Amino acid sequence: MNTILLNNITDLRLKIKEWRKEGLTVGLVPTMGALHNGHASLIKKAKETCDKVVVSVFVNPIQFGPNEDYDKYPRTIENDLKLSNEYGADIVFAPTPIEMYGKNTSLSNTELTFVCPPYNLVDCLCGKSRVGHFDGVATVVLKLFNIVTPDYAFFGQKDAQQLFILKKMVKDLNLDLTIVPCPIVRENDGLALSSRNTYLSADERKRALCLSKALKHIEKTYLQGITDTDILFDTAISILDSGVEMEYLEFRNFETFEKVEKVQANTLVAIAAKVGKTRLIDNIIL
Amino acid sequence: MNTILLNNITDLRLKIKEWRKEGLTVGLVPTMGALHNGHASLIKKAKETCDKVVVSVFVNPIQFGPNEDYDKYPRTIENDLKLSNEYGADIVFAPTPIEMYGKNTSLSNTELTFVCPPYNLVDCLCGKSRVGHFDGVATVVLKLFNIVTPDYAFFGQKDAQQLFILKKMVKDLNLDLTIVPCPIVRENDGLALSSRNTYLSADERKRALCLSKALKHIEKTYLQGITDTDILFDTAISILDSGVEMEYLEFRNFETFEKVEKVQANTLVAIAAKVGKTRLIDNIIL
Repeated sequence: MNTILLNNITDLRLKIKEWRKEGLTVGLVPTMGALHNGHASLIKKAKETCDKVVVSVFVNPIQFGPNEDYDKYPRTIENDLKLSNEYGADIVFAPTPIEMYGKNTSLSNTELTFVCPPYNLVDCLCGKSRVGHFDGVATVVLKLFNIVTPDYAFFGQKDAQQLFILKKMVKDLNLDLTIVPCPIVRENDGLALSSRNTYLSADERKRALCLSKALKHIEKTYLQGITDTDILFDTAISILDSGVEMEYLEFRNFETFEKVEKVQANTLVAIAAKVGKTRLIDNIIL
Repeated sequence: MNTILLNNITDLRLKIKEWRKEGLTVGLVPTMGALHNGHASLIKKAKETCDKVVVSVFVNPIQFGPNEDYDKYPRTIENDLKLSNEYGADIVFAPTPIEMYGKNTSLSNTELTFVCPPYNLVDCLCGKSRVGHFDGVATVVLKLFNIVTPDYAFFGQKDAQQLFILKKMVKDLNLDLTIVPCPIVRENDGLALSSRNTYLSADERKRALCLSKALKHIEKTYLQGITDTDILFDTAISILDSGVEMEYLEFRNFETFEKVEKVQANTLVAIAAKVGKTRLIDNIIL
Protein backbone atom coordinates (compact mmCIF):
# COMPACT_ATOMS: atom_id res chain seq x y z
CA MET A 1 0.00 0.00 0.00
CA ASN A 2 1.58 3.29 -1.13
CA THR A 3 -1.45 5.47 -0.39
CA ILE A 4 -1.31 7.17 3.00
CA LEU A 5 -4.51 7.58 5.03
CA LEU A 6 -4.71 10.89 6.89
CA ASN A 7 -7.50 12.04 9.17
CA ASN A 8 -6.38 15.46 10.24
CA ILE A 9 -5.89 18.76 8.50
CA THR A 10 -2.54 19.64 10.06
CA ASP A 11 -0.87 16.43 8.85
CA LEU A 12 -2.30 16.89 5.37
CA ARG A 13 -1.10 20.50 5.16
CA LEU A 14 2.42 19.48 6.20
CA LYS A 15 2.54 16.86 3.48
CA ILE A 16 1.29 19.27 0.86
CA LYS A 17 3.83 21.91 1.89
CA GLU A 18 6.57 19.29 1.42
CA TRP A 19 5.30 18.64 -2.11
CA ARG A 20 5.11 22.34 -2.85
CA LYS A 21 8.72 22.79 -1.80
CA GLU A 22 9.67 20.15 -4.37
CA GLY A 23 7.70 22.09 -7.01
CA LEU A 24 5.16 19.29 -7.50
CA THR A 25 1.61 19.86 -8.76
CA VAL A 26 -1.33 18.63 -6.72
CA GLY A 27 -4.67 17.22 -7.84
CA LEU A 28 -7.73 16.80 -5.62
CA VAL A 29 -10.54 14.30 -6.09
CA PRO A 30 -13.28 15.23 -3.60
CA THR A 31 -15.60 12.29 -2.84
CA MET A 32 -18.06 11.08 -0.23
CA GLY A 33 -16.40 7.65 -0.32
CA ALA A 34 -18.20 4.45 -1.32
CA LEU A 35 -15.88 4.64 -4.28
CA HIS A 36 -16.79 2.94 -7.56
CA ASN A 37 -15.34 2.92 -11.06
CA GLY A 38 -16.66 6.43 -11.67
CA HIS A 39 -14.40 7.68 -8.88
CA ALA A 40 -11.61 5.44 -10.20
CA SER A 41 -11.76 7.31 -13.51
CA LEU A 42 -11.38 10.62 -11.64
CA ILE A 43 -8.35 9.38 -9.71
CA LYS A 44 -6.82 8.00 -12.90
CA LYS A 45 -7.32 11.32 -14.68
CA ALA A 46 -5.87 13.19 -11.69
CA LYS A 47 -2.80 10.99 -11.69
CA GLU A 48 -2.30 11.60 -15.41
CA THR A 49 -2.60 15.37 -14.87
CA CYS A 50 -0.74 15.99 -11.59
CA ASP A 51 2.38 14.86 -9.78
CA LYS A 52 0.51 14.14 -6.56
CA VAL A 53 -3.12 13.17 -5.94
CA VAL A 54 -5.27 13.59 -2.84
CA VAL A 55 -8.60 11.76 -2.65
CA SER A 56 -10.85 13.19 0.05
CA VAL A 57 -13.45 10.88 1.57
CA PHE A 58 -16.00 12.80 3.60
CA VAL A 59 -19.74 12.28 3.91
CA ASN A 60 -20.53 15.95 4.36
CA PRO A 61 -23.39 16.46 6.84
CA ILE A 62 -24.21 20.01 5.73
CA GLN A 63 -25.20 18.98 2.21
CA PHE A 64 -27.89 16.54 3.36
CA GLY A 65 -31.43 17.63 4.15
CA PRO A 66 -33.04 16.49 7.42
CA ASN A 67 -34.99 13.70 5.67
CA GLU A 68 -32.19 12.57 3.40
CA ASP A 69 -29.80 9.63 3.63
CA TYR A 70 -26.87 11.07 5.63
CA ASP A 71 -27.01 8.26 8.21
CA LYS A 72 -27.42 5.40 5.82
CA TYR A 73 -25.04 6.70 3.14
CA PRO A 74 -22.53 3.83 2.58
CA ARG A 75 -19.21 4.16 4.42
CA THR A 76 -16.56 1.80 3.00
CA ILE A 77 -13.24 3.40 3.92
CA GLU A 78 -11.15 0.19 3.64
CA ASN A 79 -12.34 -0.43 0.14
CA ASP A 80 -11.94 3.28 -0.71
CA LEU A 81 -8.33 3.17 0.42
CA LYS A 82 -7.69 0.02 -1.61
CA LEU A 83 -9.19 1.45 -4.78
CA SER A 84 -7.40 4.79 -4.31
CA ASN A 85 -4.13 2.90 -3.94
CA GLU A 86 -4.82 0.84 -7.04
CA TYR A 87 -5.27 3.99 -9.14
CA GLY A 88 -2.21 5.76 -7.74
CA ALA A 89 -3.59 8.24 -5.20
CA ASP A 90 -0.89 9.49 -2.84
CA ILE A 91 -3.16 10.41 0.04
CA VAL A 92 -6.67 9.53 1.14
CA PHE A 93 -7.88 12.33 3.40
CA ALA A 94 -10.79 11.09 5.54
CA PRO A 95 -11.57 13.64 8.25
CA THR A 96 -14.34 13.34 10.85
CA PRO A 97 -17.18 15.89 10.89
CA ILE A 98 -15.58 17.39 14.01
CA GLU A 99 -12.26 17.81 12.23
CA MET A 100 -14.05 19.63 9.42
CA TYR A 101 -16.58 21.70 11.39
CA GLY A 102 -15.34 21.78 14.99
CA LYS A 103 -17.13 20.83 18.17
CA ASN A 104 -20.17 22.43 19.75
CA THR A 105 -21.56 24.01 16.65
CA SER A 106 -24.98 23.46 15.12
CA LEU A 107 -23.74 22.98 11.52
CA SER A 108 -26.35 25.50 10.40
CA ASN A 109 -26.00 28.96 8.91
CA THR A 110 -26.75 30.50 12.30
CA GLU A 111 -23.34 29.39 13.53
CA LEU A 112 -21.19 28.61 10.48
CA THR A 113 -19.93 30.62 7.52
CA PHE A 114 -21.44 29.26 4.31
CA VAL A 115 -20.65 29.67 0.65
CA CYS A 116 -23.89 30.40 -1.20
CA PRO A 117 -23.89 29.84 -4.96
CA PRO A 118 -26.10 32.15 -7.05
CA TYR A 119 -29.80 31.69 -6.50
CA ASN A 120 -30.37 31.35 -10.26
CA LEU A 121 -28.20 28.21 -10.31
CA VAL A 122 -29.51 26.76 -7.07
CA ASP A 123 -33.24 27.27 -7.46
CA CYS A 124 -33.66 24.67 -10.21
CA LEU A 125 -33.10 21.00 -11.03
CA CYS A 126 -31.77 19.16 -7.94
CA GLY A 127 -31.70 22.37 -5.91
CA LYS A 128 -35.50 22.66 -6.07
CA SER A 129 -36.07 19.50 -4.05
CA ARG A 130 -32.77 19.60 -2.13
CA VAL A 131 -32.97 23.04 -0.51
CA GLY A 132 -29.60 24.11 0.90
CA HIS A 133 -27.82 21.16 -0.72
CA PHE A 134 -25.59 23.20 -2.99
CA ASP A 135 -24.70 25.68 -0.23
CA GLY A 136 -23.42 22.68 1.70
CA VAL A 137 -21.55 21.32 -1.31
CA ALA A 138 -19.94 24.66 -2.20
CA THR A 139 -18.94 25.23 1.43
CA VAL A 140 -17.26 21.87 1.93
CA VAL A 141 -15.56 21.97 -1.47
CA LEU A 142 -14.15 25.44 -0.74
CA LYS A 143 -12.90 24.16 2.62
CA LEU A 144 -11.23 21.22 0.88
CA PHE A 145 -9.73 23.57 -1.71
CA ASN A 146 -8.32 25.74 1.09
CA ILE A 147 -6.89 22.73 2.92
CA VAL A 148 -5.40 20.97 -0.11
CA THR A 149 -4.67 24.04 -2.32
CA PRO A 150 -4.87 21.89 -5.46
CA ASP A 151 -3.83 23.01 -8.93
CA TYR A 152 -6.57 20.82 -10.40
CA ALA A 153 -9.75 19.38 -8.94
CA PHE A 154 -11.65 16.54 -10.59
CA PHE A 155 -15.43 16.16 -10.63
CA GLY A 156 -17.74 13.76 -12.38
CA GLN A 157 -20.11 15.13 -15.00
CA LYS A 158 -22.89 13.01 -13.52
CA ASP A 159 -23.44 15.79 -10.98
CA ALA A 160 -23.76 18.32 -13.78
CA GLN A 161 -25.42 21.05 -11.73
CA GLN A 162 -22.80 20.66 -9.00
CA LEU A 163 -20.06 20.90 -11.60
CA PHE A 164 -21.53 24.06 -13.07
CA ILE A 165 -21.98 25.64 -9.63
CA LEU A 166 -18.42 24.80 -8.58
CA LYS A 167 -16.96 26.24 -11.79
CA LYS A 168 -18.94 29.40 -11.09
CA MET A 169 -17.62 29.45 -7.51
CA VAL A 170 -14.03 29.17 -8.74
CA LYS A 171 -14.61 32.12 -11.07
CA ASP A 172 -16.61 34.29 -8.65
CA LEU A 173 -14.27 33.78 -5.70
CA ASN A 174 -11.04 34.06 -7.77
CA LEU A 175 -9.75 30.63 -6.85
CA ASP A 176 -6.47 29.87 -8.55
CA LEU A 177 -7.20 26.32 -9.70
CA THR A 178 -8.75 24.46 -12.61
CA ILE A 179 -11.81 22.26 -12.38
CA VAL A 180 -11.57 19.21 -14.63
CA PRO A 181 -14.90 17.62 -15.57
CA CYS A 182 -14.79 13.87 -16.19
CA PRO A 183 -17.31 11.86 -18.24
CA ILE A 184 -20.00 9.71 -16.65
CA VAL A 185 -19.01 6.07 -16.20
CA ARG A 186 -21.81 3.56 -16.85
CA GLU A 187 -22.51 -0.11 -16.30
CA ASN A 188 -22.61 -2.22 -19.47
CA ASP A 189 -26.39 -1.85 -19.59
CA GLY A 190 -26.19 1.96 -19.37
CA LEU A 191 -26.92 2.65 -15.70
CA ALA A 192 -24.79 5.59 -14.52
CA LEU A 193 -22.52 4.57 -11.64
CA SER A 194 -23.56 6.00 -8.28
CA SER A 195 -22.83 5.11 -4.68
CA ARG A 196 -26.58 5.20 -4.19
CA ASN A 197 -27.13 2.34 -6.66
CA THR A 198 -26.41 0.00 -3.73
CA TYR A 199 -29.78 1.06 -2.28
CA LEU A 200 -31.62 -0.51 -5.24
CA SER A 201 -33.34 -3.91 -5.08
CA ALA A 202 -32.91 -6.19 -8.10
CA ASP A 203 -36.28 -5.08 -9.41
CA GLU A 204 -35.57 -1.37 -8.85
CA ARG A 205 -32.19 -1.83 -10.53
CA LYS A 206 -34.03 -2.99 -13.68
CA ARG A 207 -36.53 -0.12 -13.57
CA ALA A 208 -33.70 2.41 -13.01
CA LEU A 209 -32.38 1.60 -16.50
CA CYS A 210 -35.15 3.66 -18.05
CA LEU A 211 -33.34 6.90 -17.06
CA SER A 212 -30.31 6.27 -19.26
CA LYS A 213 -32.57 4.77 -21.93
CA ALA A 214 -34.66 7.94 -22.04
CA LEU A 215 -31.51 10.05 -22.40
CA LYS A 216 -30.16 7.76 -25.14
CA HIS A 217 -33.49 8.02 -26.91
CA ILE A 218 -33.34 11.82 -26.77
CA GLU A 219 -29.83 11.74 -28.21
CA LYS A 220 -30.91 9.43 -31.04
CA THR A 221 -33.94 11.57 -31.85
CA TYR A 222 -31.80 14.72 -31.78
CA LEU A 223 -29.27 13.14 -34.14
CA GLN A 224 -32.18 12.43 -36.48
CA GLY A 225 -32.66 16.20 -36.71
CA ILE A 226 -35.25 16.97 -34.01
CA THR A 227 -34.12 19.99 -31.95
CA ASP A 228 -37.44 21.09 -30.39
CA THR A 229 -37.09 20.28 -26.69
CA ASP A 230 -40.86 19.86 -26.18
CA ILE A 231 -40.88 17.07 -28.75
CA LEU A 232 -37.71 15.54 -27.32
CA PHE A 233 -39.24 15.70 -23.85
CA ASP A 234 -42.37 13.87 -24.99
CA THR A 235 -40.47 11.09 -26.76
CA ALA A 236 -38.41 10.54 -23.60
CA ILE A 237 -41.40 10.46 -21.28
CA SER A 238 -42.92 7.60 -23.23
CA ILE A 239 -39.84 5.52 -22.38
CA LEU A 240 -39.87 6.12 -18.64
CA ASP A 241 -41.06 3.14 -16.60
CA SER A 242 -44.38 3.76 -14.90
CA GLY A 243 -42.80 2.55 -11.67
CA VAL A 244 -40.36 5.47 -11.71
CA GLU A 245 -41.36 8.83 -10.30
CA MET A 246 -39.81 11.56 -12.43
CA GLU A 247 -38.71 14.73 -10.63
CA TYR A 248 -37.43 16.68 -13.62
CA LEU A 249 -36.25 16.27 -17.20
CA GLU A 250 -34.74 19.51 -18.47
CA PHE A 251 -32.73 20.92 -21.34
CA ARG A 252 -30.21 23.60 -20.40
CA ASN A 253 -27.42 25.44 -22.13
CA PHE A 254 -24.29 24.13 -20.42
CA GLU A 255 -22.50 27.47 -20.95
CA THR A 256 -25.14 29.65 -19.30
CA PHE A 257 -27.38 27.12 -17.53
CA GLU A 258 -30.44 28.75 -19.10
CA LYS A 259 -33.31 26.61 -20.33
CA VAL A 260 -33.28 25.99 -24.07
CA GLU A 261 -36.21 25.48 -26.42
CA LYS A 262 -34.10 24.36 -29.37
CA VAL A 263 -31.13 22.11 -28.79
CA GLN A 264 -27.83 23.73 -29.76
CA ALA A 265 -24.26 22.62 -29.18
CA ASN A 266 -23.45 21.99 -25.51
CA THR A 267 -27.00 21.34 -24.34
CA LEU A 268 -27.30 19.49 -21.05
CA VAL A 269 -30.21 17.07 -20.78
CA ALA A 270 -30.63 16.26 -17.09
CA ILE A 271 -33.04 13.89 -15.42
CA ALA A 272 -33.85 13.06 -11.80
CA ALA A 273 -36.28 10.40 -10.64
CA LYS A 274 -37.15 8.29 -7.66
CA VAL A 275 -36.94 4.54 -8.05
CA GLY A 276 -38.58 3.19 -4.93
CA LYS A 277 -37.12 5.33 -2.17
CA THR A 278 -33.89 5.97 -4.04
CA ARG A 279 -33.38 9.27 -5.84
CA LEU A 280 -31.22 8.90 -8.96
CA ILE A 281 -29.87 11.44 -11.44
CA ASP A 282 -28.36 11.12 -14.89
CA ASN A 283 -27.59 13.36 -17.85
CA ILE A 284 -26.05 13.68 -21.29
CA ILE A 285 -24.53 16.60 -23.16
CA LEU A 286 -25.82 16.96 -26.71
CA MET B 1 7.87 56.27 -5.62
CA ASN B 2 8.67 52.61 -4.89
CA THR B 3 5.08 51.46 -4.58
CA ILE B 4 3.68 49.95 -7.77
CA LEU B 5 0.06 50.61 -8.74
CA LEU B 6 -1.67 47.58 -10.28
CA ASN B 7 -5.22 47.43 -11.57
CA ASN B 8 -5.56 43.89 -12.77
CA ILE B 9 -5.57 40.53 -11.10
CA THR B 10 -3.27 38.77 -13.56
CA ASP B 11 -0.43 41.26 -13.05
CA LEU B 12 -0.82 41.08 -9.28
CA ARG B 13 -0.77 37.27 -9.27
CA LEU B 14 2.41 37.24 -11.37
CA LYS B 15 4.14 39.59 -8.94
CA ILE B 16 3.06 37.53 -5.94
CA LYS B 17 4.26 34.31 -7.56
CA GLU B 18 7.67 35.96 -8.06
CA TRP B 19 7.78 36.82 -4.35
CA ARG B 20 6.72 33.30 -3.41
CA LYS B 21 9.53 31.84 -5.47
CA GLU B 22 11.95 33.93 -3.43
CA GLY B 23 10.38 32.57 -0.24
CA LEU B 24 9.07 35.97 0.87
CA THR B 25 6.07 36.44 3.16
CA VAL B 26 3.15 38.58 2.03
CA GLY B 27 0.88 40.87 4.03
CA LEU B 28 -2.43 42.28 2.81
CA VAL B 29 -4.10 45.48 3.98
CA PRO B 30 -7.61 45.52 2.47
CA THR B 31 -9.05 49.05 2.31
CA MET B 32 -11.70 51.07 0.52
CA GLY B 33 -9.14 53.83 -0.05
CA ALA B 34 -9.53 57.37 1.28
CA LEU B 35 -6.58 56.36 3.40
CA HIS B 36 -5.93 58.10 6.72
CA ASN B 37 -3.56 57.52 9.62
CA GLY B 38 -5.62 54.53 10.76
CA HIS B 39 -4.79 52.81 7.49
CA ALA B 40 -1.20 54.03 7.80
CA SER B 41 -0.89 52.16 11.08
CA LEU B 42 -2.09 48.98 9.35
CA ILE B 43 0.45 49.36 6.55
CA LYS B 44 3.20 50.06 9.08
CA LYS B 45 2.28 46.95 11.07
CA ALA B 46 2.14 44.89 7.87
CA LYS B 47 5.59 46.08 6.85
CA GLU B 48 6.98 45.17 10.28
CA THR B 49 5.42 41.69 10.03
CA CYS B 50 5.92 40.69 6.38
CA ASP B 51 8.55 40.95 3.66
CA LYS B 52 6.11 42.32 1.12
CA VAL B 53 2.92 44.35 1.57
CA VAL B 54 -0.07 44.73 -0.72
CA VAL B 55 -2.61 47.48 0.00
CA SER B 56 -5.88 46.91 -1.81
CA VAL B 57 -8.00 49.96 -2.60
CA PHE B 58 -11.50 49.00 -3.68
CA VAL B 59 -14.82 50.61 -2.88
CA ASN B 60 -16.77 47.38 -2.90
CA PRO B 61 -20.25 47.86 -4.39
CA ILE B 62 -21.73 44.67 -2.93
CA GLN B 63 -21.27 45.77 0.68
CA PHE B 64 -23.32 48.96 0.26
CA GLY B 65 -27.09 49.03 0.64
CA PRO B 66 -29.20 50.74 -2.05
CA ASN B 67 -29.59 53.89 0.08
CA GLU B 68 -26.03 54.02 1.33
CA ASP B 69 -23.06 56.13 0.28
CA TYR B 70 -21.46 53.99 -2.45
CA ASP B 71 -21.51 56.80 -5.00
CA LYS B 72 -20.32 59.55 -2.72
CA TYR B 73 -17.73 57.47 -0.83
CA PRO B 74 -14.44 59.42 -1.17
CA ARG B 75 -12.06 58.22 -3.92
CA THR B 76 -8.54 59.61 -3.45
CA ILE B 77 -6.28 57.16 -5.26
CA GLU B 78 -3.37 59.56 -5.77
CA ASN B 79 -3.19 60.35 -2.11
CA ASP B 80 -3.70 56.66 -1.24
CA LEU B 81 -0.72 55.75 -3.41
CA LYS B 82 1.41 58.47 -1.80
CA LEU B 83 0.56 57.39 1.74
CA SER B 84 1.05 53.70 0.90
CA ASN B 85 4.46 54.54 -0.52
CA GLU B 86 5.38 56.55 2.55
CA TYR B 87 4.66 53.60 4.83
CA GLY B 88 6.48 51.08 2.67
CA ALA B 89 3.75 49.25 0.77
CA ASP B 90 5.12 47.35 -2.23
CA ILE B 91 1.92 47.27 -4.26
CA VAL B 92 -1.32 49.21 -4.30
CA PHE B 93 -3.94 47.00 -5.94
CA ALA B 94 -6.83 49.16 -7.17
CA PRO B 95 -9.13 47.10 -9.40
CA THR B 96 -12.32 48.31 -11.07
CA PRO B 97 -15.67 46.74 -10.15
CA ILE B 98 -15.60 44.97 -13.53
CA GLU B 99 -12.17 43.51 -12.79
CA MET B 100 -13.51 42.17 -9.51
CA TYR B 101 -17.01 41.05 -10.53
CA GLY B 102 -16.98 40.77 -14.30
CA LYS B 103 -19.27 42.38 -16.84
CA ASN B 104 -22.99 41.85 -17.37
CA THR B 105 -23.78 40.59 -13.92
CA SER B 106 -26.27 42.04 -11.46
CA LEU B 107 -23.90 41.97 -8.44
CA SER B 108 -26.68 40.29 -6.48
CA ASN B 109 -26.96 36.81 -5.01
CA THR B 110 -29.11 35.72 -7.93
CA GLU B 111 -26.04 35.83 -10.18
CA LEU B 112 -22.97 35.79 -7.95
CA THR B 113 -21.53 33.36 -5.43
CA PHE B 114 -21.54 34.96 -1.97
CA VAL B 115 -19.85 34.15 1.31
CA CYS B 116 -22.45 34.33 4.07
CA PRO B 117 -21.17 34.69 7.63
CA PRO B 118 -23.23 33.05 10.39
CA TYR B 119 -26.61 34.63 10.96
CA ASN B 120 -25.88 34.95 14.70
CA LEU B 121 -22.97 37.30 13.95
CA VAL B 122 -24.71 39.21 11.19
CA ASP B 123 -28.12 39.82 12.70
CA CYS B 124 -26.90 42.30 15.32
CA LEU B 125 -25.06 45.61 15.75
CA CYS B 126 -24.23 47.10 12.32
CA GLY B 127 -25.74 44.09 10.52
CA LYS B 128 -29.22 44.95 11.82
CA SER B 129 -29.38 48.24 9.91
CA ARG B 130 -27.01 47.24 7.10
CA VAL B 131 -28.70 44.09 5.78
CA GLY B 132 -26.39 42.14 3.47
CA HIS B 133 -23.41 44.34 4.35
CA PHE B 134 -21.31 41.61 5.95
CA ASP B 135 -22.08 39.13 3.17
CA GLY B 136 -20.60 41.70 0.81
CA VAL B 137 -17.60 42.29 3.06
CA ALA B 138 -16.87 38.59 3.58
CA THR B 139 -17.21 37.91 -0.15
CA VAL B 140 -14.83 40.63 -1.29
CA VAL B 141 -12.31 39.86 1.44
CA LEU B 142 -12.29 36.18 0.49
CA LYS B 143 -11.77 37.19 -3.15
CA LEU B 144 -8.86 39.40 -2.14
CA PHE B 145 -7.43 36.60 0.00
CA ASN B 146 -7.64 34.25 -2.98
CA ILE B 147 -6.00 36.77 -5.29
CA VAL B 148 -3.20 37.86 -2.93
CA THR B 149 -2.81 34.62 -0.90
CA PRO B 150 -1.40 36.57 2.04
CA ASP B 151 0.26 35.04 5.09
CA TYR B 152 -1.14 37.87 7.22
CA ALA B 153 -4.04 40.26 6.71
CA PHE B 154 -4.41 43.47 8.71
CA PHE B 155 -7.73 44.95 9.85
CA GLY B 156 -8.58 47.84 12.12
CA GLN B 157 -10.36 47.13 15.37
CA LYS B 158 -12.69 50.04 14.70
CA ASP B 159 -14.76 47.69 12.57
CA ALA B 160 -14.96 45.23 15.45
CA GLN B 161 -17.90 43.21 14.12
CA GLN B 162 -16.24 42.93 10.71
CA LEU B 163 -13.03 41.77 12.39
CA PHE B 164 -14.88 39.12 14.38
CA ILE B 165 -16.78 37.90 11.31
CA LEU B 166 -13.61 37.70 9.19
CA LYS B 167 -11.77 35.74 11.89
CA LYS B 168 -14.72 33.35 11.97
CA MET B 169 -14.60 33.07 8.16
CA VAL B 170 -10.90 32.22 8.24
CA LYS B 171 -11.60 29.47 10.78
CA ASP B 172 -14.78 28.12 9.17
CA LEU B 173 -13.38 28.04 5.64
CA ASN B 174 -9.93 26.72 6.66
CA LEU B 175 -8.01 29.64 5.24
CA ASP B 176 -4.29 29.31 5.84
CA LEU B 177 -3.57 32.86 7.01
CA THR B 178 -3.54 34.95 10.15
CA ILE B 179 -5.74 37.98 10.73
CA VAL B 180 -3.93 40.71 12.65
CA PRO B 181 -6.20 43.17 14.47
CA CYS B 182 -4.79 46.68 14.87
CA PRO B 183 -5.86 49.27 17.48
CA ILE B 184 -8.13 52.19 16.66
CA VAL B 185 -6.30 55.39 15.77
CA ARG B 186 -7.89 58.58 17.09
CA GLU B 187 -7.60 62.32 16.61
CA ASN B 188 -6.12 64.20 19.57
CA ASP B 189 -9.60 64.97 20.83
CA GLY B 190 -10.63 61.30 20.75
CA LEU B 191 -12.59 61.02 17.48
CA ALA B 192 -11.90 57.65 15.86
CA LEU B 193 -10.40 58.09 12.41
CA SER B 194 -12.77 57.18 9.58
CA SER B 195 -12.91 57.98 5.89
CA ARG B 196 -16.50 59.03 6.55
CA ASN B 197 -15.41 61.82 8.92
CA THR B 198 -14.93 63.96 5.82
CA TYR B 199 -18.73 64.02 5.49
CA LEU B 200 -19.04 65.93 8.79
CA SER B 201 -19.66 69.67 8.98
CA ALA B 202 -17.69 71.60 11.62
CA ASP B 203 -20.66 71.49 13.94
CA GLU B 204 -21.30 67.77 13.36
CA ARG B 205 -17.60 67.11 13.92
CA LYS B 206 -17.97 68.59 17.42
CA ARG B 207 -21.10 66.63 18.19
CA ALA B 208 -19.48 63.39 16.94
CA LEU B 209 -16.99 63.61 19.82
CA CYS B 210 -19.64 62.39 22.23
CA LEU B 211 -19.25 58.83 20.89
CA SER B 212 -15.67 58.43 22.06
CA LYS B 213 -16.46 60.39 25.21
CA ALA B 214 -19.28 57.99 26.09
CA LEU B 215 -16.96 55.02 25.59
CA LYS B 216 -14.22 56.67 27.68
CA HIS B 217 -16.77 57.33 30.39
CA ILE B 218 -17.82 53.68 30.39
CA GLU B 219 -14.19 52.64 30.71
CA LYS B 220 -13.63 55.02 33.59
CA THR B 221 -16.75 53.86 35.39
CA TYR B 222 -15.79 50.22 34.82
CA LEU B 223 -12.31 50.85 36.24
CA GLN B 224 -14.02 52.29 39.32
CA GLY B 225 -15.52 48.84 39.87
CA ILE B 226 -18.90 49.00 38.08
CA THR B 227 -19.40 45.86 35.95
CA ASP B 228 -23.19 45.89 35.50
CA THR B 229 -23.75 46.73 31.85
CA ASP B 230 -27.20 48.28 32.46
CA ILE B 231 -25.61 50.82 34.76
CA LEU B 232 -22.71 51.42 32.38
CA PHE B 233 -25.19 51.88 29.53
CA ASP B 234 -27.14 54.50 31.48
CA THR B 235 -24.05 56.48 32.47
CA ALA B 236 -22.98 56.57 28.82
CA ILE B 237 -26.37 57.63 27.49
CA SER B 238 -26.30 60.74 29.67
CA ILE B 239 -23.14 61.83 27.85
CA LEU B 240 -24.49 61.45 24.31
CA ASP B 241 -25.27 64.72 22.59
CA SER B 242 -28.98 65.19 21.99
CA GLY B 243 -28.17 66.05 18.38
CA VAL B 244 -26.81 62.54 17.83
CA GLU B 245 -29.12 59.68 16.93
CA MET B 246 -27.88 56.52 18.64
CA GLU B 247 -28.38 53.26 16.75
CA TYR B 248 -26.92 50.87 19.31
CA LEU B 249 -24.64 50.73 22.34
CA GLU B 250 -23.88 47.15 23.26
CA PHE B 251 -21.61 45.08 25.44
CA ARG B 252 -20.40 41.81 23.91
CA ASN B 253 -17.90 39.14 24.84
CA PHE B 254 -15.17 39.53 22.22
CA GLU B 255 -14.39 35.77 22.33
CA THR B 256 -17.95 34.58 21.67
CA PHE B 257 -19.75 37.73 20.51
CA GLU B 258 -22.54 37.02 23.02
CA LYS B 259 -24.12 39.87 24.93
CA VAL B 260 -22.78 40.27 28.46
CA GLU B 261 -24.60 41.51 31.56
CA LYS B 262 -21.46 41.82 33.69
CA VAL B 263 -18.26 43.10 32.12
CA GLN B 264 -15.45 40.53 32.15
CA ALA B 265 -12.06 40.55 30.48
CA ASN B 266 -12.26 41.08 26.72
CA THR B 267 -15.63 42.83 26.62
CA LEU B 268 -16.36 44.82 23.50
CA VAL B 269 -18.34 48.01 23.98
CA ALA B 270 -19.59 49.08 20.57
CA ILE B 271 -21.56 52.14 19.58
CA ALA B 272 -23.14 53.35 16.33
CA ALA B 273 -24.88 56.66 15.83
CA LYS B 274 -25.95 59.06 13.16
CA VAL B 275 -24.52 62.56 13.28
CA GLY B 276 -26.54 64.48 10.74
CA LYS B 277 -26.70 62.13 7.79
CA THR B 278 -23.38 60.48 8.61
CA ARG B 279 -23.37 57.09 10.33
CA LEU B 280 -20.37 56.65 12.64
CA ILE B 281 -19.15 53.73 14.72
CA ASP B 282 -16.67 53.41 17.55
CA ASN B 283 -15.75 50.90 20.24
CA ILE B 284 -13.42 49.98 23.06
CA ILE B 285 -12.34 46.67 24.53
CA LEU B 286 -12.54 46.54 28.33
